[in-house]
Amino acid sequence: MTHPPFVDYQAVLDQIHAEVQPLLGRGRVADYIPELAKVRGDQFGMAVVTLDGTVYSCGDARTPFSIQSVSKLFALTLAFQCVGDALWERVGREPSGSAFNSLVQLETEQGKPRNPFINAGALIITDVLCTRFVNPETALVEFVRRLSGNATLQYDDRVAKSELATGFRNRAMANFMRSFGNLVNPVDDVIDAYCRHCAIRMDSVDLARAVAFLANGGVNPWTGETIVDASSAKRLSALMLTCGTYDAAGDFAYRVGIPCKSGVGGGIVGHIPDVLGVCVWSPELEPSGNSMAGSHALERFTTLTGQSLF
Amino acid sequence: MTHPPFVDYQAVLDQIHAEVQPLLGRGRVADYIPELAKVRGDQFGMAVVTLDGTVYSCGDARTPFSIQSVSKLFALTLAFQCVGDALWERVGREPSGSAFNSLVQLETEQGKPRNPFINAGALIITDVLCTRFVNPETALVEFVRRLSGNATLQYDDRVAKSELATGFRNRAMANFMRSFGNLVNPVDDVIDAYCRHCAIRMDSVDLARAVAFLANGGVNPWTGETIVDASSAKRLSALMLTCGTYDAAGDFAYRVGIPCKSGVGGGIVGHIPDVLGVCVWSPELEPSGNSMAGSHALERFTTLTGQSLF
Amino acid sequence: MTHPPFVDYQAVLDQIHAEVQPLLGRGRVADYIPELAKVRGDQFGMAVVTLDGTVYSCGDARTPFSIQSVSKLFALTLAFQCVGDALWERVGREPSGSAFNSLVQLETEQGKPRNPFINAGALIITDVLCTRFVNPETALVEFVRRLSGNATLQYDDRVAKSELATGFRNRAMANFMRSFGNLVNPVDDVIDAYCRHCAIRMDSVDLARAVAFLANGGVNPWTGETIVDASSAKRLSALMLTCGTYDAAGDFAYRVGIPCKSGVGGGIVGHIPDVLGVCVWSPELEPSGNSMAGSHALERFTTLTGQSLF
Amino acid sequence: MTHPPFVDYQAVLDQIHAEVQPLLGRGRVADYIPELAKVRGDQFGMAVVTLDGTVYSCGDARTPFSIQSVSKLFALTLAFQCVGDALWERVGREPSGSAFNSLVQLETEQGKPRNPFINAGALIITDVLCTRFVNPETALVEFVRRLSGNATLQYDDRVAKSELATGFRNRAMANFMRSFGNLVNPVDDVIDAYCRHCAIRMDSVDLARAVAFLANGGVNPWTGETIVDASSAKRLSALMLTCGTYDAAGDFAYRVGIPCKSGVGGGIVGHIPDVLGVCVWSPELEPSGNSMAGSHALERFTTLTGQSLF
Repeated sequence: MTHPPFVDYQAVLDQIHAEVQPLLGRGRVADYIPELAKVRGDQFGMAVVTLDGTVYSCGDARTPFSIQSVSKLFALTLAFQCVGDALWERVGREPSGSAFNSLVQLETEQGKPRNPFINAGALIITDVLCTRFVNPETALVEFVRRLSGNATLQYDDRVAKSELATGFRNRAMANFMRSFGNLVNPVDDVIDAYCRHCAIRMDSVDLARAVAFLANGGVNPWTGETIVDASSAKRLSALMLTCGTYDAAGDFAYRVGIPCKSGVGGGIVGHIPDVLGVCVWSPELEPSGNSMAGSHALERFTTLTGQSLF
Repeated sequence: MTHPPFVDYQAVLDQIHAEVQPLLGRGRVADYIPELAKVRGDQFGMAVVTLDGTVYSCGDARTPFSIQSVSKLFALTLAFQCVGDALWERVGREPSGSAFNSLVQLETEQGKPRNPFINAGALIITDVLCTRFVNPETALVEFVRRLSGNATLQYDDRVAKSELATGFRNRAMANFMRSFGNLVNPVDDVIDAYCRHCAIRMDSVDLARAVAFLANGGVNPWTGETIVDASSAKRLSALMLTCGTYDAAGDFAYRVGIPCKSGVGGGIVGHIPDVLGVCVWSPELEPSGNSMAGSHALERFTTLTGQSLF
Repeated sequence: MTHPPFVDYQAVLDQIHAEVQPLLGRGRVADYIPELAKVRGDQFGMAVVTLDGTVYSCGDARTPFSIQSVSKLFALTLAFQCVGDALWERVGREPSGSAFNSLVQLETEQGKPRNPFINAGALIITDVLCTRFVNPETALVEFVRRLSGNATLQYDDRVAKSELATGFRNRAMANFMRSFGNLVNPVDDVIDAYCRHCAIRMDSVDLARAVAFLANGGVNPWTGETIVDASSAKRLSALMLTCGTYDAAGDFAYRVGIPCKSGVGGGIVGHIPDVLGVCVWSPELEPSGNSMAGSHALERFTTLTGQSLF
Repeated sequence: MTHPPFVDYQAVLDQIHAEVQPLLGRGRVADYIPELAKVRGDQFGMAVVTLDGTVYSCGDARTPFSIQSVSKLFALTLAFQCVGDALWERVGREPSGSAFNSLVQLETEQGKPRNPFINAGALIITDVLCTRFVNPETALVEFVRRLSGNATLQYDDRVAKSELATGFRNRAMANFMRSFGNLVNPVDDVIDAYCRHCAIRMDSVDLARAVAFLANGGVNPWTGETIVDASSAKRLSALMLTCGTYDAAGDFAYRVGIPCKSGVGGGIVGHIPDVLGVCVWSPELEPSGNSMAGSHALERFTTLTGQSLF
């Protein structure tokens, strides 16, 4: 990896903002959670935060959105703080090779999800948090507040309830894993906490700030607090790269080349080790579940800056 | 990624060499190809080549071995030179989520293999080479000679014949893909070329040299020849990271954190962008098909040097 | 099919009773429902009822047991009475080719179970009953009382509660099918009714009497009531033959050759068209989930009587 | 089963012949073997042979066609004559639950096909014949000549060659099973014999005569020769019922209710135990691979005659 002496991030963001315009308004917003379907599709925002705290942004970077599966990254980190490597006895670290909400592999592999970023894996993570915290969703909100430095963050109750009313597939998974003994808390409690932490609302700037600890060797750059040790920060980043963008992680690594985690709300967070955190948001999705304009923007970002892992 | 001002690679290799001794003689050598089963299991060699050409090595680093699936990396690069991105119409870029020789996904996905590093994908790559070259195995041997700077490299005819006599599963795959129209040359020709390029014999030093072009932005550091452009070098490296170590790629990225490609002969090649090429060899395998001592050695290497992607 | 002028059914049952003795006490009683695990394993009973009402029996033929999946036959018949062929839009008529509680095929086939005799299919059947009846389990108990002529039949509340407390896999299936829109009542209601009708207690004589309507062209031989028309009786019998004995239906048809439905309580009901109803019970199961001594007894029965479909 | 005192089979066939007219010319002829695609689609013939040798027929009942998978029934019978129940160590007796040419289950179940009527199973059967006979296809042709009483039967070399040139999927299966050690002869020999016996040409009258031994307790009614014992005849018939009509066997048993074996040439043979053999032919297929008009005709046949197993 070459560190160019100077990158004009603002110019890069402005160029990307202009380039993605033709992509907006042509895709589909996630509609499996009714509340999410109400979001206007043609929005786009992007934010970069370097480790010295400088923020660069464009478009709708200050519009809050439902972070959805991006919360899986924070939930994983918090669960990892709680139980460390014992976590890997209950959830794997391999790409799944199938859809994020598939039950097939769970059956073949006796209720152990492939990784913490597919729904089944995130339910196990949530189960860990339910065991550790009386109010796991509050614990997670507070954790994300500290990471982003924004003490006003909250989850959106309507979105949580909307998903609770329709999330039969997640209930199927949770019951299935419970039947294998890999989920221990009452299914309703786990689903409840899961839907709440997926419903956290954040904007792109806050998310870029919240992910920066991974670029900073596991240390929250805004507080100096060690979130995870440096080795674990590297390892969580590796997991993002191989598993963070649904069933398109291989393609994403190929095209973008930095660790990312996406959500069906249209957000994608990523980071470049030792350099920056980044977040892009645009609600219209590719069939893979990743933001269409967001994926393109990140590909352009690593190309224009010449910065990627490889 | 931090570039430490100085890493004493030789000391690191010597330490690793000492550390792996207790692992040797406890695993299983690949036996599905009868010729391979004859290799003594407790051997271990490792070599590092920095981009200035300095070679560091330990143990059996100059003992030649059958590179087997490591050849898939060179075959992919050569096929990519031939047809470029058109390659991805016939083979995907996603981790497979199943065993390297599984036919299940081929059936679900209509004969298009998940990636070029599983057997089915490598057969498609070989098919591309069969279309382009009269003697694809000769073309590949010559390509690897140029990459490594060793003009005496050759494939081992006995190993090739041994695999030819027993490779019914590869024949099954090739016929299966032919039934979907995704393989176009006669099955026997493709299998023949495939077995030959898997049977190339190289030692760890030569392999560390041969992979260095990927660390060097696509340019062969020993000749100055552009093998692939810089962007493609990054992308092939991303593919190694997500798909290069069989069904343990996620775990490998988590533990080792650099792009690698392994083979059942016990070899693993890898590289650190802008810094070095590396190869480790030890014939005893983990259930995943990766070298047991080799995997451990690479994990120690990135830990001890503090160098990885993340 | 030849109708032998005279078969001494009592002699046949006595011979079978003697023959199965060495099989008893060697298998495993179902233990996934804790209440069921308490049943003594070495019991065996068998009953034959010819269409004139004559009863032949041996062993523990008057010991009541938990009919479990045998109830799927009665539930299907009752649901078929309610909605007729419209039923087949929601559940298929094909052998599943996989375990009775697998979720894999449900995913591939968009929430439509393969047949009404696997758990997923029986949940759809129960959903139909939940829509039609305020108290579906009461409706089913009354239906079975009429079929058997025993007005005292009841379900066992402890068994139902035992399954309710542990049936996470059935809840997984029900939620999964609900996510596809193929299950319409609240999951808890469906599971509740399902566990209750599986927990009906009957003895072998009553079950042999209850299945006799299928041998009698759809007409309850004890009351003259038409349960289903003659064509439907044939068709339900065909379904029993191809799908009635879990994933061993092919083997069962091969060895036994009459339509049967088995349950993990160890009961198996069957019939010979125009001739008789039969029930055998022995709690120890084969890996397929069918009663071990019961399967053997039915094979001997069709051999010794010379009566089968073929 | 009721044996009506008299059925006017000719009237039944004439009525069916009239009824199926609107179905003809609307379906698709099999085209995966180029030679088969040349057959005119709107043909229809049907023949019934009672055990006293009386022949009833209608339409194109004397037009020869390619029997294709119907040959699997004769090949199985011949292989069963050779090795008896030892056969079931190499091939199962369960419905497959997946497409007739799927490789998925082979992988899960270690190269043992589900039943002898899917392609993989028929290749194992052919492998048995290759071991037993120097010219397996000649042995099978002679066997079918004896069963039908037509000494002029032959296989169609053009059809055999057409399938040989395109049968990559069958080659994939054969190599796959060879990799598991469940196929022992050279793959090319097995494929060769398989394509030849699928290419036997027969007309509906000859096929109805050839299947009659199964209705006659295993004894060839035209010669008195015992083909298989009575118990085996029943068992092979059970196998036809549960597995004989591709992935629609459950539906077929439900609608038609007699043991049948179909082929993509459009032929379906069946029998009613103790009564008759039947064959219907019409080249246009349902998506399941069974003849469209043929399936309908058999459903009407069992309804109009009141004769079925159940």
